[in-house]
Amino acid sequence: MQLTILPSMKRKSFADSPCSIARTLDVLGDWWNPLILRESMYGIRRFDEIQSWLGIGRNILTQRLGLLVDEGFLERRRYQTAPDRYEYVLTDKGRDATKVLIALMAFGERWHFAPGDEPIRLFDRKTGRRVHAEVIDTETGEPIDTASLYPGPGPGFPYGEDIQRKRFAEFEKRGGFD
Amino acid sequence: MQLTILPSMKRKSFADSPCSIARTLDVLGDWWNPLILRESMYGIRRFDEIQSWLGIGRNILTQRLGLLVDEGFLERRRYQTAPDRYEYVLTDKGRDATKVLIALMAFGERWHFAPGDEPIRLFDRKTGRRVHAEVIDTETGEPIDTASLYPGPGPGFPYGEDIQRKRFAEFEKRGGFD
Repeated sequence: MQLTILPSMKRKSFADSPCSIARTLDVLGDWWNPLILRESMYGIRRFDEIQSWLGIGRNILTQRLGLLVDEGFLERRRYQTAPDRYEYVLTDKGRDATKVLIALMAFGERWHFAPGDEPIRLFDRKTGRRVHAEVIDTETGEPIDTASLYPGPGPGFPYGEDIQRKRFAEFEKRGGFD
Repeated sequence: MQLTILPSMKRKSFADSPCSIARTLDVLGDWWNPLILRESMYGIRRFDEIQSWLGIGRNILTQRLGLLVDEGFLERRRYQTAPDRYEYVLTDKGRDATKVLIALMAFGERWHFAPGDEPIRLFDRKTGRRVHAEVIDTETGEPIDTASLYPGPGPGFPYGEDIQRKRFAEFEKRGGFD
């Protein structure tokens, strides 16, 4: 499949959006950030190594690492003194975020985004077993199928009843929560 | 938590990357595209509705919908003749991609990216039960924990042995596949 190269676009911030998808994208949605977290997930912790694997400019990497530290995805940790040297390690939050990358990777593999099959596979540290991921419904354990879902308002829905009714027509049709 | 607004960046294409994360981001990584797919997942199919919910310019939306159709995430389907009118419906591939959005949503909820709790919840069409998602290891059914994973080369790993050894030091240390 031929991938289209998107034109550069002016950044629109979703920081004010009530949607957790939009707000998370606001941090994760910079192309470099998920790839930096991918490196962290692969155990790459040092500036020079991240820089060399990603082929990213040093200024950009400095800025993105600062952002990911500020947002609590990475921790800057000293691993050497005299001179001081630091590495960037996933926090619990960052580790949790990498699950989304693994879901993305599984999607990309299923739809052959990587030509000639996947370049990287994930294995279990203890057993060496190859690991496959899936996004499941925690109650049934079955893969999520959005065709069987519908959206309804949560406690943080920020608009009034009119918009709510319009947004969740199907939810209303089904009688809302019950 | 205060979210940082990222400066706009010049687009770097990852279309040539061997990584399925990078290549998928190359399509999904435009901020609008995941949000358009989010609307599709919520059952919003028509141009004007998508435009109005997202507050996106018509030209940009036209271009993004064209891309998502070209890339096989959405199907353009006629729902009316004289005059012809079309709507945009998730394909199997697009539906599969929305799983990644649901994983992202679950992450955003766990880490409170949406202030005042989540604005939207997902429910099961048949039962009305609220649905929660998790990214799991398909063999154990347990949530994926990247701290217990390590990467190794797949069949599509595009570089020679030297780079492979460097990239997968831990994998090599463990004796590779066995």
